[in-house]
Amino acid sequence: VASEGDAVVAGGVSQTPSYLSCKDKAEVKAVFRKQLDIFMKKNVDFLIAEYFEHVEEAVWAVEVLKESGKPVAATMCIGPEGDMHGVPPGQCAVQLVKAGASIVGVNCHFDPDTALETVKLMKEGLQAAKLKAHLMSQPLAFHTPDCGKQGFIDLPEFPFGLEPRIITRWDVQKYARKAYDLGIRYIGGCCGFEPYHIRAIAEELAPERGFLPEASEKHGSWGNSLSMHTKPWVRARARKEYWENLKPASGRPYCPSMSKPDGWGVTKGARELMQQKEATTEQQLKELFQKQKF
Amino acid sequence: VASEGDAVVAGGVSQTPSYLSCKDKAEVKAVFRKQLDIFMKKNVDFLIAEYFEHVEEAVWAVEVLKESGKPVAATMCIGPEGDMHGVPPGQCAVQLVKAGASIVGVNCHFDPDTALETVKLMKEGLQAAKLKAHLMSQPLAFHTPDCGKQGFIDLPEFPFGLEPRIITRWDVQKYARKAYDLGIRYIGGCCGFEPYHIRAIAEELAPERGFLPEASEKHGSWGNSLSMHTKPWVRARARKEYWENLKPASGRPYCPSMSKPDGWGVTKGARELMQQKEATTEQQLKELFQKQKF
Amino acid sequence: VASEGDAVVAGGVSQTPSYLSCKDKAEVKAVFRKQLDIFMKKNVDFLIAEYFEHVEEAVWAVEVLKESGKPVAATMCIGPEGDMHGVPPGQCAVQLVKAGASIVGVNCHFDPDTALETVKLMKEGLQAAKLKAHLMSQPLAFHTPDCGKQGFIDLPEFPFGLEPRIITRWDVQKYARKAYDLGIRYIGGCCGFEPYHIRAIAEELAPERGFLPEASEKHGSWGNSLSMHTKPWVRARARKEYWENLKPASGRPYCPSMSKPDGWGVTKGARELMQQKEATTEQQLKELFQKQKF
Amino acid sequence: VASEGDAVVAGGVSQTPSYLSCKDKAEVKAVFRKQLDIFMKKNVDFLIAEYFEHVEEAVWAVEVLKESGKPVAATMCIGPEGDMHGVPPGQCAVQLVKAGASIVGVNCHFDPDTALETVKLMKEGLQAAKLKAHLMSQPLAFHTPDCGKQGFIDLPEFPFGLEPRIITRWDVQKYARKAYDLGIRYIGGCCGFEPYHIRAIAEELAPERGFLPEASEKHGSWGNSLSMHTKPWVRARARKEYWENLKPASGRPYCPSMSKPDGWGVTKGARELMQQKEATTEQQLKELFQKQKF
Repeated sequence: VASEGDAVVAGGVSQTPSYLSCKDKAEVKAVFRKQLDIFMKKNVDFLIAEYFEHVEEAVWAVEVLKESGKPVAATMCIGPEGDMHGVPPGQCAVQLVKAGASIVGVNCHFDPDTALETVKLMKEGLQAAKLKAHLMSQPLAFHTPDCGKQGFIDLPEFPFGLEPRIITRWDVQKYARKAYDLGIRYIGGCCGFEPYHIRAIAEELAPERGFLPEASEKHGSWGNSLSMHTKPWVRARARKEYWENLKPASGRPYCPSMSKPDGWGVTKGARELMQQKEATTEQQLKELFQKQKF
Repeated sequence: VASEGDAVVAGGVSQTPSYLSCKDKAEVKAVFRKQLDIFMKKNVDFLIAEYFEHVEEAVWAVEVLKESGKPVAATMCIGPEGDMHGVPPGQCAVQLVKAGASIVGVNCHFDPDTALETVKLMKEGLQAAKLKAHLMSQPLAFHTPDCGKQGFIDLPEFPFGLEPRIITRWDVQKYARKAYDLGIRYIGGCCGFEPYHIRAIAEELAPERGFLPEASEKHGSWGNSLSMHTKPWVRARARKEYWENLKPASGRPYCPSMSKPDGWGVTKGARELMQQKEATTEQQLKELFQKQKF
Repeated sequence: VASEGDAVVAGGVSQTPSYLSCKDKAEVKAVFRKQLDIFMKKNVDFLIAEYFEHVEEAVWAVEVLKESGKPVAATMCIGPEGDMHGVPPGQCAVQLVKAGASIVGVNCHFDPDTALETVKLMKEGLQAAKLKAHLMSQPLAFHTPDCGKQGFIDLPEFPFGLEPRIITRWDVQKYARKAYDLGIRYIGGCCGFEPYHIRAIAEELAPERGFLPEASEKHGSWGNSLSMHTKPWVRARARKEYWENLKPASGRPYCPSMSKPDGWGVTKGARELMQQKEATTEQQLKELFQKQKF
Repeated sequence: VASEGDAVVAGGVSQTPSYLSCKDKAEVKAVFRKQLDIFMKKNVDFLIAEYFEHVEEAVWAVEVLKESGKPVAATMCIGPEGDMHGVPPGQCAVQLVKAGASIVGVNCHFDPDTALETVKLMKEGLQAAKLKAHLMSQPLAFHTPDCGKQGFIDLPEFPFGLEPRIITRWDVQKYARKAYDLGIRYIGGCCGFEPYHIRAIAEELAPERGFLPEASEKHGSWGNSLSMHTKPWVRARARKEYWENLKPASGRPYCPSMSKPDGWGVTKGARELMQQKEATTEQQLKELFQKQKF
């Protein structure tokens, strides 16, 4: 499909159940190598190590991917508080670049604002260490100001009640501008991004790119197609100022605006995270509810 | 495409700018007849007159469509307050059935709860008039408790900031059950419905239909695929009770939960609604803002 | 105390447990007469029959109070849906005036907007019946858009969690203006009103009264004392326009903005409302929770 | 009045306009000394230096007050981010104790949760410095999770639209328990605290004190007086569990749950904070709005 356009193709690896279950470095690297073999057979353009909660494992992934000689991007699914072992974003970035990544950043787990805050810390870490790398961001298309350190997985709405958190195209345009101004040049999205969200990135950065994306033929920017609407008060919404300043209502007066995340800060090695082949038992569920009470 | 499955095909007509601009009955009917000709050439299975704000025009549409001899469904985009001329839902239903519709109901403009309230009034109107017809509902996939009489068009979020109002699959299951219990047998959705929303209707009514929809192969019902998730507190969400009772947060603490609709109750014939070929002028915009102040 | 100022003194009676427990007219009237005797001994200026949910009982109260020859005001704690037996506000007003009340209106149970809506219906009822009476309103100082027919008693926050619903002085000024424009001349407040709320009524209507209330010496109107604040951005709040348009945040992102009222529409005569001398038993509590589930 | 009960009396000084306008140490101390003279004439039991945003000035105040030989308490109106010059709470506490304060803590500007977070940092600072002092907290009776470093003054609702933020008695009980568990023994409240809020502190800590406060005669704890209410669903609220878990609705669906604070981080010495004897001029207001845009 990529050859239909002028697109490049990446092969990607992510964090492994093996690592969470405390397998050793060699075993975890073997998992990555197995995947890399297939990507090399297909001769992908570059490689991505993405969605890592522990920088130790991310470094192992980058080391394996670098064996290929291809450019490697590495993104972690962490927030400003850093990885699950407490390594701050700046240090994560430094370790990843030292391991061979030429692009570093974050993906998933947090909303655009939080993601950019984390990339900013990565950038500062690299500058302090006098290292250079391209920056990358692929946040969620969900508002998550109430996330804890472990991201949106722990929010009670995950994964089947996230609708009220979905960001608008105007939220995306603000994100794209802010990301660009921060020096990020690989600006994308993760879970929840729909094609119209991605188009909004391309539209916001059209002045920099020198052209609008193809899909902009379908609509006018900043809602200007509304200028022909039957109702005059809808016509009045055909303005950038209108959409930029709108505070959209949820239509859900019986719901709160923020949630308390579940989760108890357990991380790699905790009994609760050991890989389990069977579905949760009644007994386990009972223990869970007991824990949640305290 | 329909013949790939066991599907029926409908041809649909909607309200016309001609009617809003006060063209007469013959002119408006001519517009519908022109569309009907094409549907007849394609030999559709049945016809739908949908998205009408004025029952007068909807009746004209049904009369034209009935000339074909095909079954006709008629849905209005009205709420419990009735059509834009003040005709209550019960009377709208009676007029439509008398004009020849064998299915009546509502589509668009309001959320599931409001839509069902309107169909209930239609049903009561038909019962009082000792008329019989099938019932139909195709609500929005947006929560709109704050709508005025004219529906979601007037909400400030329409159409490019509606994301926080999107309903969940669990909202849809409740809607499907309530619609079924009300006696509605043509249960669907309008703007905002995604395939997974439609699947949720089919899943809720699987006991009545005797089988699950094909797309249910992709997931477990009521989130039960989560029972294998790495994190135990996410595993605990693999339960019907959990999703049924969740009050999903918006992640938007700086936004309200309801909006005041725009619009001034103008209807057919008002100067502001006359068809206009040019985009809104600066002068018109100025007048608009002036009006909105009062 | 009244003689220190230029105040009049009223004696008030309210709905009785006897009525709810189905005692007959003579018995209920005896209860009112017993209270009236004391008011007459103290020679009050006028009498109020207030906080009635059933117009039948309110009429009995007015009849008793009228025996005194003093002017009688009658207020019901009902909303636009009418009394607990389904008598609409307009008819309630007519019955009360016919029984002898020279002032009619509402008190308690609902917020200012809802109270005024109810008084408007009373006014229309009186006009239709060609009756004349003064109008009166004493709403709650709590926002209650989510109340059912029975008012704020049924809201889950009643009575010890109502703080986030407390109205501001600016809400009161809007209420006073709207009440005045509706023709109400006995404009007050019920539960939740603090002295500064009552002062806000007097300040809003200072142009009509020709003077500011004494307590206005303590502060500048519309926050204008802020014009001397140390911080310039606080100084900028010394303007009517600022406070009129403020949408005050709750500071409670984990709470909803509306609640579902408890209660099952039971009324006079229902077993659950029979006067009970003992505290609720465990068994009764169990039955309650069972009922609330459905 | 104090001698009617068994109460002690304090004299208090607060931050001075002189300090904000950059007067020198001698001049600022002279202001405090002038106040101290009066307190000494009245022979107060102890002295409080409260509501300081800059630890430098608070230290000057404590030094002056210590000249009296009386015990001195010192509270700052800062949050976890520290004083307006960036001195963290732990260091503030250390400086205050070294200057002679035997009680340190915070008052005003932030809600109970934030206040306790700050006192916790003070406690840790003292422990690290091997210093000993009693701890004290007097937070606002308003929820302020959206405050910036400068506290609730900057919130758009300050000071005449704070009603929806008022804390409940149950919030106070949680605060009192948490404060006690943190080791605080001077547990009070600042702006917004009503007598019933203070009573709630005394009731929560009745087990530790060995008796209930006198005012508890007026009501049953945890709403238990409701057990005799006419309506059974209100009776069911006479339980600790009910009030502890209630998420009270605001009744304000058109308002947000959080606000963006005003203010530009200006501090002592900034032109905008110089003492000004005249009210804000139109020109200054214009400059303000200009600034707020950016």
